[in-house]
Amino acid sequence: MTALFERHRATLENALEAAASRGYWSAYPEVPSGRIYGETAKDDGLAAYEARLGKAFDLPGHPAGTTVGAEVSPYGPALGITYPAASAETLVAASAAAGPRWAAASPETRTGICLEILARLNAMSFEMANAVMHTTGQAFAMAFQAGGPHAQDRGLEAVAYAYAEMTRTPAGATWTKPQGKAAPIVLEKHWRVVPRGVALVIGCNTFPTWNSYPGLFASLATGNTVVVKPHPAAILPLALTVAVARQVLAEEGFPADIVLLAAAPGAEITQTLVRHPAVAIVDYTGSNAFGAWVRANAGDAATYTEEAGVNSIVIGATGDFAGMCANIAFSLSLYSGQMCTAPQDIFVPRSGIETDEGRKSFDDVAAGIAAAVDALLTDPARAAGICGAIANPATLARIALARPLGRVVRDSAPVEGLDGARTATPLILAVDAAETDAHEEERFGPIAFVVAVDDARDGVERAARLAEEKGAITAALYETDEAAILAAADRFAAAGVNLSVNLTGGIYVNQSAAFSDFHVTGANPAGNASLTDTAFVAGRFRVAMWRRPLAA
Amino acid sequence: MTALFERHRATLENALEAAASRGYWSAYPEVPSGRIYGETAKDDGLAAYEARLGKAFDLPGHPAGTTVGAEVSPYGPALGITYPAASAETLVAASAAAGPRWAAASPETRTGICLEILARLNAMSFEMANAVMHTTGQAFAMAFQAGGPHAQDRGLEAVAYAYAEMTRTPAGATWTKPQGKAAPIVLEKHWRVVPRGVALVIGCNTFPTWNSYPGLFASLATGNTVVVKPHPAAILPLALTVAVARQVLAEEGFPADIVLLAAAPGAEITQTLVRHPAVAIVDYTGSNAFGAWVRANAGDAATYTEEAGVNSIVIGATGDFAGMCANIAFSLSLYSGQMCTAPQDIFVPRSGIETDEGRKSFDDVAAGIAAAVDALLTDPARAAGICGAIANPATLARIALARPLGRVVRDSAPVEGLDGARTATPLILAVDAAETDAHEEERFGPIAFVVAVDDARDGVERAARLAEEKGAITAALYETDEAAILAAADRFAAAGVNLSVNLTGGIYVNQSAAFSDFHVTGANPAGNASLTDTAFVAGRFRVAMWRRPLAA
Repeated sequence: MTALFERHRATLENALEAAASRGYWSAYPEVPSGRIYGETAKDDGLAAYEARLGKAFDLPGHPAGTTVGAEVSPYGPALGITYPAASAETLVAASAAAGPRWAAASPETRTGICLEILARLNAMSFEMANAVMHTTGQAFAMAFQAGGPHAQDRGLEAVAYAYAEMTRTPAGATWTKPQGKAAPIVLEKHWRVVPRGVALVIGCNTFPTWNSYPGLFASLATGNTVVVKPHPAAILPLALTVAVARQVLAEEGFPADIVLLAAAPGAEITQTLVRHPAVAIVDYTGSNAFGAWVRANAGDAATYTEEAGVNSIVIGATGDFAGMCANIAFSLSLYSGQMCTAPQDIFVPRSGIETDEGRKSFDDVAAGIAAAVDALLTDPARAAGICGAIANPATLARIALARPLGRVVRDSAPVEGLDGARTATPLILAVDAAETDAHEEERFGPIAFVVAVDDARDGVERAARLAEEKGAITAALYETDEAAILAAADRFAAAGVNLSVNLTGGIYVNQSAAFSDFHVTGANPAGNASLTDTAFVAGRFRVAMWRRPLAA
Repeated sequence: MTALFERHRATLENALEAAASRGYWSAYPEVPSGRIYGETAKDDGLAAYEARLGKAFDLPGHPAGTTVGAEVSPYGPALGITYPAASAETLVAASAAAGPRWAAASPETRTGICLEILARLNAMSFEMANAVMHTTGQAFAMAFQAGGPHAQDRGLEAVAYAYAEMTRTPAGATWTKPQGKAAPIVLEKHWRVVPRGVALVIGCNTFPTWNSYPGLFASLATGNTVVVKPHPAAILPLALTVAVARQVLAEEGFPADIVLLAAAPGAEITQTLVRHPAVAIVDYTGSNAFGAWVRANAGDAATYTEEAGVNSIVIGATGDFAGMCANIAFSLSLYSGQMCTAPQDIFVPRSGIETDEGRKSFDDVAAGIAAAVDALLTDPARAAGICGAIANPATLARIALARPLGRVVRDSAPVEGLDGARTATPLILAVDAAETDAHEEERFGPIAFVVAVDDARDGVERAARLAEEKGAITAALYETDEAAILAAADRFAAAGVNLSVNLTGGIYVNQSAAFSDFHVTGANPAGNASLTDTAFVAGRFRVAMWRRPLAA
């Protein structure tokens, strides 16, 4: 039963080492190269994706009362795929029924199966890339990386943390208590991992795999059965995941229903699942409003959320004005601002900043960033590859609503050459913090504010307070004074925000690397959990003991 | 700032090693001996206790609006001690005000201070023994052990787990991502522990220190400020603890208000504290009813509870009938059944059991246990030393209410020679599970049921189901068939109960040893947390990062 564990042991050990040292490491190559994934992998992946269109998605043996599915690619075409759907009650009952077999499997058996699922998902990264691209609107390269290897790394990270915690307490020990001159009391003790029960994973539209894999694999590795509830607009990536998991489980002699898909659309089934007394763990990615509902209604279930927030950049000074503007431009443009890590507010001193190009006024800075976005997106093919498409029609509407909120420094426009796709480049507005609080509301999508403030310190304080009140996942700072950098690091840490300082090259505030960057701190309203730390896995199981006097 | 850490480093390292290997270890000697604690320690401790009676308890600088205190020893006399009391709002404000200084201290500084507090508490174990004895009713020897060294061990265990988690992520790392033939991207990254805020510890009447120290020290070590809410009948042991903590903090240059006492009686202040938005962590020991209220009303606070349950013994067969009866008799009599680990129900096959003394009928087994209790408690001095006194008058009333619920096998009676004390020896009732469910309700105190069931397997199933429905912290089994033992171990593990098998010597099902036995699993209604595992500490803080390109 542990052949899979042995097969993937080196991967696990490397992951544990990387998570401990937190240097760069990745198990799954992020380059969509034929030399790595096979010369025909790209074509095969596309063909596999296209073969699924317009058909019923096959999940052998999955509970099904009806079929559902109405996914439409943000690039235009309807996917036409239908999925088996069952009621919340049916799914929970099937999940719970599969529970005892999975709970009885050893941590090594479960870990081995999780690692095999991840390895198979990695092998089909090109098919997944197409599935993610046409449900989220991500450009192909990003869909490959974020939907494939990066998501798999995040899954592996969760498995590694889960394995470490499950094995922290030994399976057995001898307890010998001295009794003075009398014979000692000697007990044999045995411990085992006891899972909590049925786990629910609620996925989001924009990163269906990246944001779901940590909870899915953490719960699965620790012995819980898992019901995966995808966003109705992004079912396919998680259906593919569930299909692979069910296949590996069945091959290893376990009930496939250890992993189930809750494909039915609408909030009702999600709410029924969250409230169900048998659901003992809930992982949620989505809005603050529904996140608050989940936290309030999940009862005694362990609840792990990534919600939303307002991410900020504070510009105090820079030694590389061009590099700074280019870096910020990329962060604003990437996936058209639809990353939970994308900045929204750029705080700039009203009186301007010192730079390597001399003093720049507030307007100079705003214009510099706008020009950098223009330069970045001049070539339509490059623009399409960076911006991708807009996942949700409401995001386009939000741009129009935002336009009157400030002075337009750069207007949003469709991406050229993507006919039929729903696209939008960044809208950049200039406002003054003394005159408006329009920038303090989360405006998801390609909407950014350059906000005039008293000075950099005022900007840091406003950004940090915004994080404390509305949540924030990332913050960035441009500053040349070391004391000011350290003070900002203190302030953002107190606000529970991870901070990037003086990024000018090929690394962006949006990026969060598995095994090194914890994603979300759990310490502000942007989420109550962190991907992936010990707290994310340790509460997903319990330890039970039995003991008896050791036979002489 | 880390001198205290260095002073106690060996203790910490030994604790970490013991918690990992889970063999026997203790940092604080449990024997109330003058050779260990000093020849005059016993007299000094009594004198120190007596010097506090009838006076205002001194907590220098503690917020105080009024004074409160109406403790009466279960052995008779009123303590006459008054404590400073402030409103919930005042306490939370003072706690929050002390937060930034404590949050900014390093994990080593905080850990060193916690270890120094524990060392000083250990040195005053005799005074604490008197305080615990006269607030809980525990006999002196037990009050010394459970209120002193064993509680300190549990506190140390929490500090060790907290230290391990706080230091699991390095303070810094260099992240070097290869870029093919181009220069790698190199970032320096810095992580720090961010506490959650104000922590609330709600103590109980029967084990004010043992049950409170894990949460208190886990929250304190991880950088949270702590408000300690003692049970109004057992303030003194926690007031002593708070006084020591405040003194050490002040000596080390920190605000004493990092640890505060909420001495005011009544549920109102507790409810206000639990609901307070600034209270980010709640540790609770007490009834299921109030525990459910705490879990439902603590909002987004991390909540760790030990509630209550119905603990069972199942007798299938024994190779040592006399040893079994004596062992059970001690478990029923110790502190008059007022331990959360004490058994209430003893399931015995209706048709009797096989023993080393031949077949014993159901009545033989019940009579054997009753006779063993009688034998144990024949000597009044010994009876007083085992049973102690009854903490709460309601427990005495409960005995009278329970008497008609079954056939009295052994009646409860006062302990002889303890004039003026509230005492009661075990009431043992015989019932048949086919005829009543009176034994399925928790009846806290010296009340036990010998319950006739079909066979041992029926007994295991009933005991496990009771644990699942009502909660259970311990279970015991007497069985000679190895397959039946392993099956019972499986069943009780699934019910989240720690199981003791065939205890006949000087170790009892009630006993839970720090560094080896996890207390409560968190997997049934007897509590949602375990003392002390990683899950108990990992959610008490968050980790925040800042990163920047590494200077060349």
